[in-house]
Amino acid sequence: MTGNPSRIRPGLHASLRDHFGDRYSTAAAVRDHHGKDDSHHPAIPPDGVVFAHSTEDVAFTVRSCARHATPVIPFGAGSSIEGHVQAVRGGISIDMSGMNRVLAIRPEDLDATVEAGVTRMRLEGELRGTGLFFPVDPGADATLGGMAATAASGTTTVRYGAMRDNVISLTAVLANGEVVRTGGRARKSSAGYDLTNLLVGSEGTLGVITELTVRLHPVPEAMAAAVCAFPGMEEAVRSVVEAVQLGIPVARAELLDATAMRAVNGHSGFACVESPTLFFEFHGSEEEVRSHGALIEEISRGLGGTAFAYARRQRERARLWKARHDAYPALLGLRPGCHGLTTDVCVPVSRLARCIAESEEDMKTASMPWGVVGHVGDGNFHAVFIIDPNSETELAEAEAINERIVRRALAMEGTCTGEHGVGMGKMRYLRDEFGAAGLAAMRAVKAALDPQGIMNPGKVVG
Amino acid sequence: MTGNPSRIRPGLHASLRDHFGDRYSTAAAVRDHHGKDDSHHPAIPPDGVVFAHSTEDVAFTVRSCARHATPVIPFGAGSSIEGHVQAVRGGISIDMSGMNRVLAIRPEDLDATVEAGVTRMRLEGELRGTGLFFPVDPGADATLGGMAATAASGTTTVRYGAMRDNVISLTAVLANGEVVRTGGRARKSSAGYDLTNLLVGSEGTLGVITELTVRLHPVPEAMAAAVCAFPGMEEAVRSVVEAVQLGIPVARAELLDATAMRAVNGHSGFACVESPTLFFEFHGSEEEVRSHGALIEEISRGLGGTAFAYARRQRERARLWKARHDAYPALLGLRPGCHGLTTDVCVPVSRLARCIAESEEDMKTASMPWGVVGHVGDGNFHAVFIIDPNSETELAEAEAINERIVRRALAMEGTCTGEHGVGMGKMRYLRDEFGAAGLAAMRAVKAALDPQGIMNPGKVVG
Repeated sequence: MTGNPSRIRPGLHASLRDHFGDRYSTAAAVRDHHGKDDSHHPAIPPDGVVFAHSTEDVAFTVRSCARHATPVIPFGAGSSIEGHVQAVRGGISIDMSGMNRVLAIRPEDLDATVEAGVTRMRLEGELRGTGLFFPVDPGADATLGGMAATAASGTTTVRYGAMRDNVISLTAVLANGEVVRTGGRARKSSAGYDLTNLLVGSEGTLGVITELTVRLHPVPEAMAAAVCAFPGMEEAVRSVVEAVQLGIPVARAELLDATAMRAVNGHSGFACVESPTLFFEFHGSEEEVRSHGALIEEISRGLGGTAFAYARRQRERARLWKARHDAYPALLGLRPGCHGLTTDVCVPVSRLARCIAESEEDMKTASMPWGVVGHVGDGNFHAVFIIDPNSETELAEAEAINERIVRRALAMEGTCTGEHGVGMGKMRYLRDEFGAAGLAAMRAVKAALDPQGIMNPGKVVG
Repeated sequence: MTGNPSRIRPGLHASLRDHFGDRYSTAAAVRDHHGKDDSHHPAIPPDGVVFAHSTEDVAFTVRSCARHATPVIPFGAGSSIEGHVQAVRGGISIDMSGMNRVLAIRPEDLDATVEAGVTRMRLEGELRGTGLFFPVDPGADATLGGMAATAASGTTTVRYGAMRDNVISLTAVLANGEVVRTGGRARKSSAGYDLTNLLVGSEGTLGVITELTVRLHPVPEAMAAAVCAFPGMEEAVRSVVEAVQLGIPVARAELLDATAMRAVNGHSGFACVESPTLFFEFHGSEEEVRSHGALIEEISRGLGGTAFAYARRQRERARLWKARHDAYPALLGLRPGCHGLTTDVCVPVSRLARCIAESEEDMKTASMPWGVVGHVGDGNFHAVFIIDPNSETELAEAEAINERIVRRALAMEGTCTGEHGVGMGKMRYLRDEFGAAGLAAMRAVKAALDPQGIMNPGKVVG
């Protein structure tokens, strides 16, 4: 599927071509690539793609689009999964992957400044040998700009927080083409309105993030991972919730259901028990890692956990977490050629076991395969429905189940999305989550900062 | 000094009197009390004061004021220190102290929901026996609503974060009188724009916070405090910065200069060495507390720290922290009848020693007494100038020094205010801190959410 190039106003087309030369493309293959993400949402290509190399490139593009009242859609790694990059009203996609410079690493302040197209693994590589790491780990090798734009989180959020907790300040281009820096590098500030957190999670609808200053954390002296199988989902969830309630600072606590374990065994050559399983990680001094592990083992055994196995060496741990991160492709591999529709509710931890149990009753009615993975310590889980991309029925069926799961989570004082963002897929839930007054306030902010509605339109608040 | 009651439009006056009866006052003493905070800023009384008991009381007041285009100023404990509560354009003050119910404490989710008028110590009292505590501790017994509105922090922020990190969601009344709930109770969310963080730090200029859901933390198994004196400020600062850079999770690390120590000795009956001194606290297991303390002691001694003394018993620790919290009144006590003008810059920690050293050169030119206290682990310090309230010269002199300190902090990628907020006192610095484009974006948000400009006008962005 391709967009209609005639939607580009000729003046804009010429202006971008003149300015960017080969770094502006309207080739069908390039447009198609920039019109889709890693989700079930159908591709909607933009009318042209600018490959930005600098904040000024982005500002020029936004100013040009503003003059022609044409949408602007930032594109990072394309790894989002709620239809964030689709050009639903046409327009120009800005590919940020060329803005991939790590601008500064400051061990003395535990921070780093990067261009928005730097990926998580790229930063990890640059940090090797510094004794520091950047903790937010959504699995995919997303760009940090995209992770900030979707307020992403991941497996270590239970200990180190989400993007919101780890972004100190941003540089962004607003709808009027102006460049703003949302703050300095102080660890805290009470100065003015919090533009940083307004842009984090705004999914390109209020501005294009071009640089980020992020917090780094000292690599712990010791780390160990552990795997534990449980008789049922409830016992697994309760183990983690008890640990969180006791204040045991687990660094990771990830749940995979029996289906996800079957998929992981096949995909990663594991031979784990195919029942609900927790993957843990412990960080700290040797003594802390030992004591956190022992406490978790005791809690887990008390709830029927078996086969509690440690992975202490770096290589073993890396293999374990690669397997966990590959759970999504592994699940898709259970039904080749299919797409994933992924739910993302997050509820207060005390309600998570009930939320999952009741939601599984809904899932069991599904005609297609599904599996569950969860960031249990945060109260967040994903049901992944593996759907035939050509079946409207399956899509409708999975969406209806997702809707029931979301309604349940909202009734439990949770959220429709813990970490994937709203995109196109969850816009319909915002009124229920924030009320008419809350949604109206968000729309007022959007109208104030983007009066023409050119910034990634058709996402978040419309 | 009193405002001019004729500024109240008669219809508004009658409407509030009819609705609230005795809970609406225009008595001069009541108005005077609500026109000033704990700072050097002169009192500017409102035209009337509503004593709110519910979110609906606040909504009624805001709707009434909106109909009459009259300013609304929230008032908590009056403990702010940048002129947040002064009725610079007249209007109605809403006293929140009657909204003092703790609505829910949920140990299973490590959170609590409180009305905005609940004070920090009130919540501390309610939490006794639950094994949980609320960490943000600005010293004063402020209301939690006021602490959220100013994005406050305090002595434990180095370990547990500021209000921004500990507010999960809010209920607030917007300028149109609508009540919004900014989120549920999930530990993370990517749903929509972050209205919670937009209101945190907005100082009543975007809405009146009426309820908060906040994070609680498990009371650590063990705690110990320690005091250590240093030959100079630089060595003291460098001790903490080294600890932070090494990732030692100190729970508190507070600096007092020689003058502040002299004031504290006099005020609290201490007999400490009157040289730059750090007050530490360590939280964790017995083993962690011992090891954090030993590491800090080693670092401190390496930098010339002497008289490293522990306070392990609860009573000793409480006495120590009361003395630290009383440093502000103790400093004011050095010159009876005088007011404090307090600076609040915060810089990247690696630059703190230089920022303080260079700023002390400025302070030494002052004709009035001054002292320094600092939340060193955050990169934040306060110079307290003890000024004669009747001397325009002293005020101008202290403000000129503050301006030099702020310019220096901004040049170091810091902020003009780490935790006190902008109020009336720091509005002039926002353009330098955020640039014209950043300030314009903040003003656009303000205009969108408060088109009549009735919400605490003359503060933050004007």
